[in-house]
Amino acid sequence: MNLDRLTRIREQMQRFNYDHLIITSPDSIFYLLDVEIHPGERLLALSVSKTSCKLFISALFPMQNDLGLPVIYFKDTDDSLKLLADDIQSAHVIGVDKNWQSHFLLTLMKAHPKSHFENGSPAVDNVRLCKDAIESERMIKASLINDQVMTEVMQFIKEEAPLRPLTERDVQKKVVEINSKLGVYEMSFTPTVCFGANGAEPHHDCDDTILALNQPVVIDIGGRVDGYCSDMTRSFYYGEPTDKYAEVYALVLEANLKAIAKVKPGVLLSDIDNAAREVIEAAGYGAYFTHRTGHGIGINVHEFPDVSGGSATICEIGMTFSIEPGIYLLGELGVRIEDLVIVTEDGCDVLNHVVKTLTQL
Amino acid sequence: MNLDRLTRIREQMQRFNYDHLIITSPDSIFYLLDVEIHPGERLLALSVSKTSCKLFISALFPMQNDLGLPVIYFKDTDDSLKLLADDIQSAHVIGVDKNWQSHFLLTLMKAHPKSHFENGSPAVDNVRLCKDAIESERMIKASLINDQVMTEVMQFIKEEAPLRPLTERDVQKKVVEINSKLGVYEMSFTPTVCFGANGAEPHHDCDDTILALNQPVVIDIGGRVDGYCSDMTRSFYYGEPTDKYAEVYALVLEANLKAIAKVKPGVLLSDIDNAAREVIEAAGYGAYFTHRTGHGIGINVHEFPDVSGGSATICEIGMTFSIEPGIYLLGELGVRIEDLVIVTEDGCDVLNHVVKTLTQL
Repeated sequence: MNLDRLTRIREQMQRFNYDHLIITSPDSIFYLLDVEIHPGERLLALSVSKTSCKLFISALFPMQNDLGLPVIYFKDTDDSLKLLADDIQSAHVIGVDKNWQSHFLLTLMKAHPKSHFENGSPAVDNVRLCKDAIESERMIKASLINDQVMTEVMQFIKEEAPLRPLTERDVQKKVVEINSKLGVYEMSFTPTVCFGANGAEPHHDCDDTILALNQPVVIDIGGRVDGYCSDMTRSFYYGEPTDKYAEVYALVLEANLKAIAKVKPGVLLSDIDNAAREVIEAAGYGAYFTHRTGHGIGINVHEFPDVSGGSATICEIGMTFSIEPGIYLLGELGVRIEDLVIVTEDGCDVLNHVVKTLTQL
Repeated sequence: MNLDRLTRIREQMQRFNYDHLIITSPDSIFYLLDVEIHPGERLLALSVSKTSCKLFISALFPMQNDLGLPVIYFKDTDDSLKLLADDIQSAHVIGVDKNWQSHFLLTLMKAHPKSHFENGSPAVDNVRLCKDAIESERMIKASLINDQVMTEVMQFIKEEAPLRPLTERDVQKKVVEINSKLGVYEMSFTPTVCFGANGAEPHHDCDDTILALNQPVVIDIGGRVDGYCSDMTRSFYYGEPTDKYAEVYALVLEANLKAIAKVKPGVLLSDIDNAAREVIEAAGYGAYFTHRTGHGIGINVHEFPDVSGGSATICEIGMTFSIEPGIYLLGELGVRIEDLVIVTEDGCDVLNHVVKTLTQL
């Protein structure tokens, strides 16, 4: 168990006045224990008070090593939630994980009818918000590999598309293959590959669309390395880009660069969002930039902070998030350019290095 | 929208005295709308009262077709949960999805402090419990394809293992490849491939273990076809099985067959579990059969009913579940034999057809 991280979480518990905290997200448990556990629908919980910290886990997932904390195993026939409820001693305020399954929460509420329940995730997320040295190292490594994957994928499209009908699914499969070759077996998310007008859907599901000459491409990919996620998008052209595409691309790139230039400790995250949004709005495309500028990333591909117009969070050293403005013209084209950044003392390190000038394959 | 299924869910709402039901599981929404929506951390909800049914969804996921119900889109900057809370009119009892993220539930509770909240999933799960004709057809199709995958994987191991060091990950990758060739792009779960003593871990994560001659193998795989999951396990031997292995295998097979023979309408599911468990206990291996005999399956790989010693559910026509007894001797070997069955008027249809007699590759 990472005692330093647990201590910082307990400081947050005190700040929020939680007497007890139930941590159930496999990601947060990985953060504390450096072990990946995915128990499906079964209970998995770290039960944390000021003085105690225990792991409740199904006997189907025996731990291989001593984790440095008491582990309570239960069978499918045991009442696992009663075991957990019994571990909570006269707590006035109980914080629970934001994503904990509601049925567990409702049962725990019945077992502790006098306690007050709150979303306790801020106590963990505030700590996870700023990456420590070990985490930054893993983030950098994951993105370096992602750079390599993107470079090879672009090369693959350049070589294969002229020779045979190349579908989005073919490229998606190639992304997984290249990752696997580089020792990455878990994607941060299902790779997104968009040909032509499909790029106008920010969350397009790959299909059998074939890449035609003189079409735009959007590729959004990431892999999980040592538990930490990469995430990068590049937009480029197969063939000769239209003037309209070049215009939109230049705007998105400018928005990406302006937002990155804005990142440093003390800045409001909403101002980073604004820096990107202003560029796109000034050119009359504001309505086509339909999402926030970025999201925090780490063990999970989407975590805090939120880089949006509504974000009152102030930038701190170690925060790690995406900068990914986009313009989506339905039925026509889409452009998104996404990099990950880690906030440093006087600005930020950009974790991605694949070229961002308009590229023709 | 499937109005027949919605009507049956409303009957259950009446039975449980829910005035309002919040359905948020992407699987249950697929069940009603036949559309796959995976909104990640964003709100997705069907808000169901006796007279109204509306879909709340992020504007990032525009629906392509008319779904036959009102759709309320919200942006990332909107207070999506307030929109949902405002749709609930003076409901005394509100049922919420069992797996809904706790922070949404806690916020909704604050917006409706006088309402009583319950796990509302039984109203949906009781309907999903018995598959209708359309669903049975999809389940049968998914398992037929899974039979084909298992057959090809066994052939692959037989041909490749003598030629080169074959790792669990190689076989896992092959499972995905064969599925993909057969048009199946989503696994029911990460394929499990266990060589040697790794088979003694019921949830082993594939690694670089190489298959040696005279070792047991456990393969547990399934794919999602037209939204419905398959799931099958076969255990077999690469080389010459030991007497101990043959003994354990024979027991597990007998347990599998006895449990299947027990399945028919009117029987307690706990008795089906017992039918398998008795065989294994009588031979002195009871302590090594560490999980329930089976789980319901359909849109989700684990759904109701629960086929365990604690299950008071009575078998009904259309119920679809796995029968998967196993014996796990830590550090030595594991055997599990899993088939899916659909309950029929006078017994059940077994959906898997890959040979179950002890196979040597």
